[in-house]
Amino acid sequence: MNYFEFPNIAEWQGILARPSSAGEDLRPLCEPVFTDVAERGDVAVKEYVERFDRVKLDALQVSDAELAKAESEVSDELKAALSEAYANIERFHAAQRVERVAVTNGPGIDCWQEYRAIERVGLYIPGGSAPLFSTVLMLAIPAKLAGCSEIVLCTPSNSEGIVNPAILYAAKLCGVTRIFKIGGIQAIAAMSVGTVTVPKVSKIFGPGNRYVMAAKQFAQSMGVAIDMPAGPSEVLIIADKSADVRFVASDLLSQAEHGADSQVVLLTTSRELYSSIDAEVERQRRLLSRADIAQKALDNSRVVLVESVERAVNMSNMYAPEHLIICVEEVDRYLPDISNAGSVFIGNYSPESAGDYASGTNHTLPTSGYATAYSGVCLDSFMKRVSFQRLSERGLQSLGKTIVIMAESEQLDAHANAVKIRLGYE
Amino acid sequence: MNYFEFPNIAEWQGILARPSSAGEDLRPLCEPVFTDVAERGDVAVKEYVERFDRVKLDALQVSDAELAKAESEVSDELKAALSEAYANIERFHAAQRVERVAVTNGPGIDCWQEYRAIERVGLYIPGGSAPLFSTVLMLAIPAKLAGCSEIVLCTPSNSEGIVNPAILYAAKLCGVTRIFKIGGIQAIAAMSVGTVTVPKVSKIFGPGNRYVMAAKQFAQSMGVAIDMPAGPSEVLIIADKSADVRFVASDLLSQAEHGADSQVVLLTTSRELYSSIDAEVERQRRLLSRADIAQKALDNSRVVLVESVERAVNMSNMYAPEHLIICVEEVDRYLPDISNAGSVFIGNYSPESAGDYASGTNHTLPTSGYATAYSGVCLDSFMKRVSFQRLSERGLQSLGKTIVIMAESEQLDAHANAVKIRLGYE
Repeated sequence: MNYFEFPNIAEWQGILARPSSAGEDLRPLCEPVFTDVAERGDVAVKEYVERFDRVKLDALQVSDAELAKAESEVSDELKAALSEAYANIERFHAAQRVERVAVTNGPGIDCWQEYRAIERVGLYIPGGSAPLFSTVLMLAIPAKLAGCSEIVLCTPSNSEGIVNPAILYAAKLCGVTRIFKIGGIQAIAAMSVGTVTVPKVSKIFGPGNRYVMAAKQFAQSMGVAIDMPAGPSEVLIIADKSADVRFVASDLLSQAEHGADSQVVLLTTSRELYSSIDAEVERQRRLLSRADIAQKALDNSRVVLVESVERAVNMSNMYAPEHLIICVEEVDRYLPDISNAGSVFIGNYSPESAGDYASGTNHTLPTSGYATAYSGVCLDSFMKRVSFQRLSERGLQSLGKTIVIMAESEQLDAHANAVKIRLGYE
Repeated sequence: MNYFEFPNIAEWQGILARPSSAGEDLRPLCEPVFTDVAERGDVAVKEYVERFDRVKLDALQVSDAELAKAESEVSDELKAALSEAYANIERFHAAQRVERVAVTNGPGIDCWQEYRAIERVGLYIPGGSAPLFSTVLMLAIPAKLAGCSEIVLCTPSNSEGIVNPAILYAAKLCGVTRIFKIGGIQAIAAMSVGTVTVPKVSKIFGPGNRYVMAAKQFAQSMGVAIDMPAGPSEVLIIADKSADVRFVASDLLSQAEHGADSQVVLLTTSRELYSSIDAEVERQRRLLSRADIAQKALDNSRVVLVESVERAVNMSNMYAPEHLIICVEEVDRYLPDISNAGSVFIGNYSPESAGDYASGTNHTLPTSGYATAYSGVCLDSFMKRVSFQRLSERGLQSLGKTIVIMAESEQLDAHANAVKIRLGYE
C-alpha cells in the first residue's frame, strides 16, 4: 500500500489518479464479429463460441431440462439466501416506481410524463473465475419490475457446454425469458443485431472483461443503448477513530480480491488507523484464497492521512468512487456533501458486501469516475419516459402568440403556420 | 409523398424503414482534434475555430458587454414569449423532482437513493441556418433546476465573431454560467478535455450536424456522458376522420421544413384524409420560405391507409417516432398502448410546435428509433442517483448468513469475511 500524509489539494489529483485505461483499441476486433453475426446469424455465433468460448454447441439456448437440472443442483441454503436477497432487491427497486408526472400549464394546457418499459433487454453475465449469479438478481429483478416483455441473458458455458447452476437458477427465479450459452463479443453482437435464435434487444446490461466492454461500446455506437461504461471495481473508505481497523481492512480486501486492477483507497483522520491498517490487512489477506490477486491490487492502493473529514469528502468527490464507505462520528453532517459516488455505505456495520448481495441496493455501479455523471442501475434503467400533451383550442389560443413569435424568430415558418392555421390567424 | 393502402404486417418494416445512416465514419476526423485540444488547449481551439467556423477570435468567451448588447437587440415581443415559455418549461421540469426514495428492509437495514446534480454540464447550440434559442431553454432550464454548478454553452459565432442575440439572451436568462464562441468538433473536444478557458464537463447535451454528433460519440467513448445519440428529426401522425386535413398538413410541413432528411409519416384510417392530404400539403408548402427543403423531405414521406387505429398504434410502436401526433376519436383508449415514442401530441389543437417551444415539455427527444430505449431530456438527465445504506449491528446480523452464503458461492472469501469479522463468526 502507498502512504501519504496531509497532501495539499494540488496533490490530490495525482494521488488519486487511476491507471490510464487507454490500452489497446479493441474496436477493430468487434466490427467484423458484428458484421459476420448480422450476415450469417446463428451459424456465425456458433463458430465464434467454438473459437473463443472453446465449446461446440448444438443448441445455443439453455433448455428447460437444463434449467430443471440446475435447480436440483443448487443447495437449499443458497436458495434461501437468494430468496431473501430477491425480496430486498425487489422492495428497494419497486419503491423507485413513478407512475406519472403531470402539470397543467394554464387552462387547456395539460402536459404529463408516463413510463414505459423497454420491451426487449439483454443481460450479460460473465463466466470467468466467479459465477456472478448475484448480478443476475441485480439486473433481472428491476427488468421484471419495469415490465420488460423479453429479458434475454447471455453467459458463456464451460467447455462441456454447462452453465453454472446458480446462474441458471437465479435467471429462472427472476423471470429471464431466454438464456443463451454465448460469451464475449459474439454475445453482445448477437443481442445487438438479432439472429433467428437470439432476439435483437434495445438495451444491453452487465459487466464483462475488456472484450465485452469494447463490444458494448461498439453496440452503443450502432444505436443499442447500454447501462454504462465500465472499468475496474473500486472502493474509497473515509474513516476516523470511530472505525474498527479490522472492519476497514476487511472492506479494503473485499475490493482487492476482485482483481489485480481493483482500486482501493483509504482516507483517514486517525493517525492510529493510518499506522495500524497495514498489519491488519496483511493478517487478513494471508488467509484468503485469492490472496495473490488481492496483493496485486493492494500494491497500487493508497492510504491517505487527512486533516478533516470535510477534506476527505472533498477528495472523495474528486475521485467519484464506485463504492464509498464512510465510518465517522456524526456522519449525517457529511452526507449532503457527498456529490459523486455510486453507492454509499455508512458506519461500522455496513460492509460493501451487504450491498453487493442482499441489502436491496443495486451493485451495478459507475466506476472510473463515471459517478460524476452516471447513476448505477435502477428501475429507471429499464424504462423510458414518454411525454404527452393535450391542448384544447383555448389552451392553444393562450400560447399561440408565444409559439408563433418564437417559431418566426427561428425562421421556421411552418412551425408558426401549424398554430396560425388552427387559430384562424391566416 | 409515397402512398400505401392496407399493408400487411410483414410489409410494415419496409414501408417505415429509415434511410440507412451508415455514411462516412467521422471518428477518424474527431480523434486528432481531441488529441490536439488536449495537448495545446486554447491555442488549438482558436486554430480550429479559424479553420472550420471561419472566424479569427481574440477571446473565446462571450463578454458581459456582448451579453448586454444582445439583450438590447432582442425585441420586447420575443422577450415576453421567452418568458412565458420559460415559466412553462420550468414548471413541467420542476414537477419531475424526486427528493429521496427510502426503504427499510427489516430492522436496522435502511436503504435510500438521493439525487445529486451533475456538477459541470456542457450545452451545444448549433449556429447554422436557424438560431435555435429554444434549445437553450430546453437544456439550460432543467440544468439550472437540477442545481448544476457550472453550465457551459458552446455555439459558433458568425464570421464577424457575433453570436445570435436571441441565443445569448436566452442563455443569460437561463443562468448559463459561461458562453463560448466555438462550434463543431472543436467545441465538443474543448468541453470534453478542458482547456485553460473552457471547463471540462461531465456530460454534453444538444443537437448538431453530423460532425458534432460524431464528436459527441467520440467523447462518449472517452467516458464523457452525452444526452443521447441523434439522427434526423421525425414526426408520425395517426389520424382518423376527426382530424382536420389542414392541421395535419401543417404538422407534416413543420417537420419537413427542418431538413431534407426529416422523416414524415402519416397513418390514417380515413380514406378521405388519405386522398386529400397531398393537395393540402402542396397548397401550404408553396407559401413557405423553406419550401424547397420541405419538398425534399416530403419526397421520402409515407402516407399509409390502415384498417384501424390499433394497427396504426402498433405500426407507430415499431417505428418509435421522435414525435407522435395522435388525433382520433376516443383517443384515451389508445394512449396506454403507445410504448415507443419521444413525445406525444393529442388531438386537433396540440401541434408539435406547441411542445417545440412553449407548452412545457422538452423538445430534445430520441430520433431514429432510439425511443425504444431512450427518454427525451428531462430533469433527471442533469442529475445522478446515489444509493445509501446504513445497517445497524442487528441489521447486519439478520442479513449476515445470506451475504456469507452468496459470497462464498461466488468464491469471494473476502466479501464473506467482511461480514464474519463484524459478527464474530471467525
